Amino acid sequence: MNDLAHYAQQTAANAQAASRALSIATGEQKIAWLHRTAELIRANFELLQAENERDLQKAPEYGLASAAIDRLRITDARLSGICDALEEVALLPDPVGEVIGSNPRPNGLLVTQVRVPLGVVFFIFESRPNVTVDAAALCVKSGNAVILRGGKEAFYSNQALHGLIKSALGETGLPEHAVQLVSTTDREAVGHFLGLDEFIDVTIPRGGKSLIERVANEATMPVIKHYDGICHVFIDKAADLQMARQIAVNSKCQRPGVCNAMETLLIHADVANQFWPEIAADLKAEGVELRCCDRSRQLTPDATAVTEEDYRTEYLELILSVRIVDDLAAAIAHINEYGSRHTDAIVTNDLSASTSFTGSIDSAAVHVNASTRFNDGGEYGLGAEIGISTDKFHARGPCGLRELTSYKYVVHGSGQIK
Amino acid sequence: MNDLAHYAQQTAANAQAASRALSIATGEQKIAWLHRTAELIRANFELLQAENERDLQKAPEYGLASAAIDRLRITDARLSGICDALEEVALLPDPVGEVIGSNPRPNGLLVTQVRVPLGVVFFIFESRPNVTVDAAALCVKSGNAVILRGGKEAFYSNQALHGLIKSALGETGLPEHAVQLVSTTDREAVGHFLGLDEFIDVTIPRGGKSLIERVANEATMPVIKHYDGICHVFIDKAADLQMARQIAVNSKCQRPGVCNAMETLLIHADVANQFWPEIAADLKAEGVELRCCDRSRQLTPDATAVTEEDYRTEYLELILSVRIVDDLAAAIAHINEYGSRHTDAIVTNDLSASTSFTGSIDSAAVHVNASTRFNDGGEYGLGAEIGISTDKFHARGPCGLRELTSYKYVVHGSGQIK
Repeated sequence: MNDLAHYAQQTAANAQAASRALSIATGEQKIAWLHRTAELIRANFELLQAENERDLQKAPEYGLASAAIDRLRITDARLSGICDALEEVALLPDPVGEVIGSNPRPNGLLVTQVRVPLGVVFFIFESRPNVTVDAAALCVKSGNAVILRGGKEAFYSNQALHGLIKSALGETGLPEHAVQLVSTTDREAVGHFLGLDEFIDVTIPRGGKSLIERVANEATMPVIKHYDGICHVFIDKAADLQMARQIAVNSKCQRPGVCNAMETLLIHADVANQFWPEIAADLKAEGVELRCCDRSRQLTPDATAVTEEDYRTEYLELILSVRIVDDLAAAIAHINEYGSRHTDAIVTNDLSASTSFTGSIDSAAVHVNASTRFNDGGEYGLGAEIGISTDKFHARGPCGLRELTSYKYVVHGSGQIK
Repeated sequence: MNDLAHYAQQTAANAQAASRALSIATGEQKIAWLHRTAELIRANFELLQAENERDLQKAPEYGLASAAIDRLRITDARLSGICDALEEVALLPDPVGEVIGSNPRPNGLLVTQVRVPLGVVFFIFESRPNVTVDAAALCVKSGNAVILRGGKEAFYSNQALHGLIKSALGETGLPEHAVQLVSTTDREAVGHFLGLDEFIDVTIPRGGKSLIERVANEATMPVIKHYDGICHVFIDKAADLQMARQIAVNSKCQRPGVCNAMETLLIHADVANQFWPEIAADLKAEGVELRCCDRSRQLTPDATAVTEEDYRTEYLELILSVRIVDDLAAAIAHINEYGSRHTDAIVTNDLSASTSFTGSIDSAAVHVNASTRFNDGGEYGLGAEIGISTDKFHARGPCGLRELTSYKYVVHGSGQIK
């Protein structure tokens, strides 16, 4: 076994031991740790910014673009935001120990299903330092030990933040290995961790598609995956025109670079002549490039022709595929064929159309008369999210505290035998 | 693409198309199918037994032992049992469409979490023909299409049963590809299915450890795994002696060849001198071979010495590892070290000991004053089970209808934008 393999195994074994202690820690202890971590961060803005400065100095070496450098920077406002987030997680209900089901049996056995932590989370992420603290907060609050593997671009920032997290663990009586930071940024190390399913219960990669694919292929434990968001809005014939205009523009333009932004607009043929020119004008005013089907292009002749490939593309910028469809069934068929099962919306005032749409669209989130942009742990009331899942197994959509838990059956009897 | 690969892809694509229709089928349709399948089986006992006879004739060629041949045989009583099971599944609550959570948001959005089918289940099993029908019933009732891959030993029996299942699907208006039987018993075919994660949402292997390992290694989609049951009973110092004797004997002897039978007995040192000789006598009277630690062996000198390896062994027969431990903490440490996280029990009248044990034992099922043998979907009130999971991700312990489902977020608004 080489040094990296040995290091990974030791780290993972330490995490498992810590997870056992953490799984029975009281809610009060975990809350105390969250508050203490926030206090330590507030008391160390200067130290943290000095360490962050070391990362910023090296950023050009790593070829980071200015947007990426901006995300890496730790400002006073961002540190305050990190501390506020810790205190918000402290206020969330503790998921561990919740009784999520029970069956009193005829023979007197009381069967209960009790929520428990998953155990050990291996969390792989890129360069935003706030994610380091968010992930630690969500994992510890849900009773899980976490192994954090940040990007090399944030090496010094992450070391400094982790130092404070670790101090707070010690001060509040929680195991110091509850939150570990992988001390090497060697990519080979990740491979060693991904084979340690006897210690690690789930891996969560947060980053680009190639990272997620690599992790999904190599990991021997479950992975919570977050792939493309090819999101649709369907304007039904019974839509309100004003509402349709606002939802279309908001879904596409409010933040086009994110997974829950709209990529394809579908319009019912019965209202296309009336609606499409107005919606198209709104979108063009926002600078959206339109790629249209033959029918919609007749109404907006300056648009380019959409291709099959476009319908399968997550643009992540101000480009939109547009298609006029004959009816609701054609809209559903289009979405189930070309979509990525992320977030899809209908705009309608017809109850039967709404019911069909929510029943037939096989996506993590189906919105009626609301922008696709609301698919988010905070907006859904989960409090905070460690990621969004495009899987159907275990967790689907935004992953908050509950999605970091499993359950066990606890059965109380009085001497029953079979 | 060779013929087998093409066949697998076509079968899986058909299943996915069927799953879309099935996911919005009404509960009434699914109930009608369950009843009609039972009727057709009741009307075709002779046909089914004739086809089963063809399998029985070939059984010696496959080297089946007499116990395996017995499991393969379709008797009148077994056919009645299969029909009764179908009618019991018909009576279970339909899981699809259940609202499992909701958050009314301050901006007026109503966020709901709605239970939906997983989609397509690939179910791999061995030679018991009743499993063919059980699995189809549970999958269809939960809105999933299923691809059944039975063992070659039951080829003709499965073909005949599937013929009736398919007729019933057609007669009740459900898609004929909702239940498909893999028509080849070529082992290579399984490998092709295991790569089709774009069509298949979960694979459930039911069989020996080598089958499960192969599937877990090759599958690109999630797998519900069922590994060893190294189950413990801990007799606490505050146990009732009579209860301890009965639970120990029942957990070990009532059916020693199954996963929820006890493999190791742990006894608190404070009561070992009094309890162990009596429990040992009960176990010996049932023919159990005892493998004892040094301390317990002093009280039962005719027992052999237990080894580290024994503590990690699932005997599945009338052999028992025995260890006297200093206290509750030592019992918990032993179980978390040597156990397989399946089913572990404590016998005690001490509330604090019971609370510590249920909190600290990281197993799918933790029993207080009840035999380990109760860990079972039927006994827990799930109605029926398609398997037992030793995973912590998605489903843990017995898997019934709910464990074959996912959820989606359905969000109703009135024009909200972000």
